Amino acid sequence: MANAGTRMGLQIRSTVKKEGIVEISLAGVPTPEPKPDEVVVRIDASPINPSDQGLLFGGADMSTARASGTADHPVVTASISPTVLKALAGRLEQPLPVGNEGAGVVIQAGASAAAQALMGKTVAILGGAMYAQYRCIKAVQCLVLPPGTTPAEGADCFVNPLTALGMVETMRLEGHKALVHTAAASNLGQMLNKICIKDRVALVNIVRKPEHVDLLKKIGATYVCNSGSPTFMEDLAEALSGSGATVAFDAIGGGRLAGQILTAMEIAANRTAKEYSRYGSTTHKQVYIYGGLDRGPTEFNRAFGMAWGIGGWLLTAFLQKIGFEAAQKLRERVAAEIKTTFASTYTKEVSLAEALRIEEIAVYGKQATGGKYLINPNKGLR
Amino acid sequence: MANAGTRMGLQIRSTVKKEGIVEISLAGVPTPEPKPDEVVVRIDASPINPSDQGLLFGGADMSTARASGTADHPVVTASISPTVLKALAGRLEQPLPVGNEGAGVVIQAGASAAAQALMGKTVAILGGAMYAQYRCIKAVQCLVLPPGTTPAEGADCFVNPLTALGMVETMRLEGHKALVHTAAASNLGQMLNKICIKDRVALVNIVRKPEHVDLLKKIGATYVCNSGSPTFMEDLAEALSGSGATVAFDAIGGGRLAGQILTAMEIAANRTAKEYSRYGSTTHKQVYIYGGLDRGPTEFNRAFGMAWGIGGWLLTAFLQKIGFEAAQKLRERVAAEIKTTFASTYTKEVSLAEALRIEEIAVYGKQATGGKYLINPNKGLR
Repeated sequence: MANAGTRMGLQIRSTVKKEGIVEISLAGVPTPEPKPDEVVVRIDASPINPSDQGLLFGGADMSTARASGTADHPVVTASISPTVLKALAGRLEQPLPVGNEGAGVVIQAGASAAAQALMGKTVAILGGAMYAQYRCIKAVQCLVLPPGTTPAEGADCFVNPLTALGMVETMRLEGHKALVHTAAASNLGQMLNKICIKDRVALVNIVRKPEHVDLLKKIGATYVCNSGSPTFMEDLAEALSGSGATVAFDAIGGGRLAGQILTAMEIAANRTAKEYSRYGSTTHKQVYIYGGLDRGPTEFNRAFGMAWGIGGWLLTAFLQKIGFEAAQKLRERVAAEIKTTFASTYTKEVSLAEALRIEEIAVYGKQATGGKYLINPNKGLR
Repeated sequence: MANAGTRMGLQIRSTVKKEGIVEISLAGVPTPEPKPDEVVVRIDASPINPSDQGLLFGGADMSTARASGTADHPVVTASISPTVLKALAGRLEQPLPVGNEGAGVVIQAGASAAAQALMGKTVAILGGAMYAQYRCIKAVQCLVLPPGTTPAEGADCFVNPLTALGMVETMRLEGHKALVHTAAASNLGQMLNKICIKDRVALVNIVRKPEHVDLLKKIGATYVCNSGSPTFMEDLAEALSGSGATVAFDAIGGGRLAGQILTAMEIAANRTAKEYSRYGSTTHKQVYIYGGLDRGPTEFNRAFGMAWGIGGWLLTAFLQKIGFEAAQKLRERVAAEIKTTFASTYTKEVSLAEALRIEEIAVYGKQATGGKYLINPNKGLR
């Protein structure tokens, strides 16, 4: 109902056009009136995660990005290759809202007691369309942050924390005793280290730069292997022997790393084997690909026997699998430890309009460790 | 006990030498005296399966094969590449017996009632070292063939039949309703078609040649796709839509086929999707690699969402997982249907010495559909 009382708000939208371009724009949209079980949250903080960038950029080549529109209503366009475009048939010509998660203050509430109880509270929410000034959402989806927590501190309560916890839970549920993580110096990777240190779970970190080895060692990591080192495979096999890790979570996706991990796991498993087995070790070795920092093809040599698996891992599928109650326990742990275990750091805070500047996209679009942005959709507008 | 009464027998052995060659030879070995619970089987038929060739050739380049030794005691040597050699560290300098399965007549039995009951019976056995005149084995491992079954008819009671049944069982256990099979015109593939027709399970066959399409259509296959056809991806997606198959068993291993199957499954799944999902369909899509007809690397583009898996599938691991009783039921089905559902056809029957002739290796080493050999270890020796 866009009547006189309707609150308008800015929202980032991404449209893949059938001619092979993505158009990212800032639109003014009416905020829905909350139903009895809903609230309206003023979003004060929302991180730009790699998983957001997939939807935001639509797989476009952002080096081709061009700006148009006005300062208040910027528009960015960029080209999408025909191959990538083919996979996007399902979203053609639809202006999609973006932003998986965020935090802010409840400024309007529906009639139900549960909704009313949230008025004025600082909450974290997950559910898309967070790159917006306002978000109408079910009260039950709000995670109330502990008193004294700012929206910026609580902005990343779900994607990274639940993914990190989900990895450790998956490890346990599938009977592994330790785990491997790639792109391990990321915000998520640092969280995972803190969880594993706290929970006494052995973790093998794989990074691509020597300075990331130092970074992780400094926060207490035991096993850190640099995939750029000439002794990487030996180092990795050694770390896998020491930790007993037989499951890995890979953010890279493309290239040979997933296969290298399985190969090193097989080498580690065979160190304790008593006799030659033509089909390799009977230890099940698993790599879950949960990201695509390298969008190129995945390639492996199958030099790791027959007891192995590679598969996709998706947070929402994992949460569905474990069920609401188990997932709620994980969420409550995140809220309780949001300033310690699950603290995120950001390079820069930007407004919605600033997030669409070509020079900012060039920085956060790299998805480099230590280059993470936070959007404050109400920056300069309150 | 190699005393005067010891029965000597010929046996094929394969040794990987540390200098990077495989040496395949025919050795005279003493047959062990059967313990109370054991019998000695005179092997009259043993198939050369792809899984046997892995152990037999040790991954050597058989185009480099050279013959030496004598007509009665031939020796074949061939070069192994340094990469392959590295993976064979566990079997260096060990003369390994070869031959997973076979059939023959029980000619000597231990003192136990179970062993004695088998005297003179034609049995099928699994357990390695079957490319030999005699095999001492536990009575409980013998599958008694129905009266009137020849050893040649019962030679392949385990590897192909149990693999084919194991695929259908895995499909059921993991909640899929139809399956895909590659290299589908093979002996194994034909068996799988007969099982699926009998059990009313939809099966999508992938072959590489037009004549194999005809072959499978002739035995009643509904879905046959030729991966060499320019319309392969469309044909496959169509067959997957029609059958609802979401699990595949791949004998090829290397190349892009596994990824193509997952991509086509995703296309089929999205045909029924109601709205765009950025992470792809939620239908779990699985490819099990159980063979390595293409020894090259496996490569895929991950153009199939997040709900997918690729993994190794090994008969012995499957049988262990389902347990002895369930496995025994499968074995009994094989024995009962050995002349129908599970009938194998062979191109040629060779003796142990003939199996080591360079010109024969050149034929059966191709592992071509319709080029399967049967070894009769006692051919010309009885």
